[in-house]
Amino acid sequence: MLLNRPVKGFLLDITGVLYNTSNNGTGVAIEGSIEAVKRLYNESKVIFVSNESSHTRQHLFNKLTKLGFELNKNDIYTPAPIAIDIMKKNQLRPYLLVHKECLDEFKDLDTTNPNCVLMGDAEEDFTFKSMNEAFKILLNTKNSVLYTMGYGKFYQREDGPCLDVGAFGEALRFATNCKHEIIGKPNESYFMAAVNKLNLDKDEVVMIGDDIVSDVGGAQKIGIRGISVRTGKWRPEWERHPDVTPDFIGNNLKEVVDMILDCKK
Amino acid sequence: MLLNRPVKGFLLDITGVLYNTSNNGTGVAIEGSIEAVKRLYNESKVIFVSNESSHTRQHLFNKLTKLGFELNKNDIYTPAPIAIDIMKKNQLRPYLLVHKECLDEFKDLDTTNPNCVLMGDAEEDFTFKSMNEAFKILLNTKNSVLYTMGYGKFYQREDGPCLDVGAFGEALRFATNCKHEIIGKPNESYFMAAVNKLNLDKDEVVMIGDDIVSDVGGAQKIGIRGISVRTGKWRPEWERHPDVTPDFIGNNLKEVVDMILDCKK
Repeated sequence: MLLNRPVKGFLLDITGVLYNTSNNGTGVAIEGSIEAVKRLYNESKVIFVSNESSHTRQHLFNKLTKLGFELNKNDIYTPAPIAIDIMKKNQLRPYLLVHKECLDEFKDLDTTNPNCVLMGDAEEDFTFKSMNEAFKILLNTKNSVLYTMGYGKFYQREDGPCLDVGAFGEALRFATNCKHEIIGKPNESYFMAAVNKLNLDKDEVVMIGDDIVSDVGGAQKIGIRGISVRTGKWRPEWERHPDVTPDFIGNNLKEVVDMILDCKK
Repeated sequence: MLLNRPVKGFLLDITGVLYNTSNNGTGVAIEGSIEAVKRLYNESKVIFVSNESSHTRQHLFNKLTKLGFELNKNDIYTPAPIAIDIMKKNQLRPYLLVHKECLDEFKDLDTTNPNCVLMGDAEEDFTFKSMNEAFKILLNTKNSVLYTMGYGKFYQREDGPCLDVGAFGEALRFATNCKHEIIGKPNESYFMAAVNKLNLDKDEVVMIGDDIVSDVGGAQKIGIRGISVRTGKWRPEWERHPDVTPDFIGNNLKEVVDMILDCKK
C-alpha cells in the first residue's frame, strides 16, 4: 500500500504533470496543479525532476512562473548541468544534437573535433543533416558514447503526442551499436541527487509523473514509490503495463497531493 | 566452398556495388563494374535487387545508363511497385514518409485518413514534422503497421556514410511498439521474386552486395550464396561479423564476376 510508510517529500515531473506544452511554447497549467504545488511548499518538501532539455532551466522557471506557479528555481532539476559536468570531468568534446535555444547553455564546452554525442530534445533541430553528423561521429570514433538527456518515447504537446529523445537515440544506436548513457530519469544517480537534496531517505519520498517507464518504473526500480497521473502523455493501456505497476494512480497532481497530505492529518 | 555448386545466375545490389552515390545525385561508377555487368549479360543471367527508395526505378535506370551501364529496365527490382501492390490488395491508406521525388510513384494510392505508414529512404524529408505525423498514426491506429522499403542501417554517399531507412524505422518502433514489415531485402519473398525471374533455383544463384546483413545474411538465410564486396558501405570489421560469414569476399564486383565466370571455363 502506498501509505504504509509516511510520505515526507515529493519528486514531481514537470511537463505533463504541472502543465501541458503547447504549440506556441507558453504551455497550459493543468487544473489544480498550481494549488497543489503551493500546498506542497507549505506542508511538505518538493523537488522538480524533469528531463526537459529543449529549453534551459531558466526558461523553464520563467515559463512556470508566468503560468502562475510559485517555486524556487533551485528546486528544479534538469539534465543539462549534469551533462556539462560529465563532459568536463571526462574531457569529452560533444557533438551537440540539442535544440538551438539551448546551445548557449553548453557554450563553455569544447566542441571541436567531437569524440562523443550529447543529445537532448532537439525537436525541429532533429534533421537528416544533424542526425547524420551525430551518426558519423559514433560510427567513426572508437568507443564513443551517445549521451542522451532523458530517453522518453514521446511527450504530450497540445497538438498531440510528439517523439521524444529516446526515439532519435534508438535510431543512432541501431545504426552504430554505440555505447549509450542516459543523463536524467530513469538514471538512478539522477533520482538520488534529488532525494539527497530533500535530506530524506528514498523510502520517505514519492515520485509523481506521467511517464510510466521513466518516472514511475524508474523510481520504483531504486525503491522510491512511483505514482502515475492521468494527465500529460498518460495512456489508458499503461494501467495494464507489462512491466510497471504504479504504487498509486491519480487523476491529476492535485488529487494525489490532497489525498496524501489529507491522510497525514 | 562457393563454387561447389555451379553459379547460373547473379543477383546484384546496385548502390555501393555498381556505383557510389554522390552529393550532386549523379553517382560515380565503381571501377570495373560497367564491364562486369556487360560480361554478366553476355555470359550468364543477372537481376538487380535494390532497396532503393529515394528515387523511382525509372530514375535509377536513367542514372545507371548515364553512368555507362548497359542493362534492361525490367531487370531492376525496387521495393516501391511491391509496396503499392500490398497497399492496394489490403485496402491500406498509407501515410507516405518517402522522398518527395518519389511521391509521384505512389499517386494512385488512397492516402486520406491514413491507417498505416509506408516509409522509404526519405533522406532530407525525414524531419521532426514528418516523423511525428507517422508516429501519431502508428500510436493512435489500432493494429497499424509500419511498412519500410528496406531496413538498412546506413548506406554510403560520396561524402561519407549516411543513415538509412532502418534507423528511422527503429525510432518509430521504439516509440510505438508497432508491427513492422520489411518490403525489400532481406525479405524472403523479395529475393525469391528475383530468383524466379531468372528461372533458376535459389541454390543456382549468388547474391552480391555491400550490406553484410541485408544482402549477404538475408540471401544466405534462405539458401542463396551471399558474396560481400569491399566497395560501397563495406566496413573492415564486417569480415569478423558475429552473425554473418559471406560465402566469398571480393574486392569489387568485377573481381567476383571474373573469378566465377573464369572458373566455369
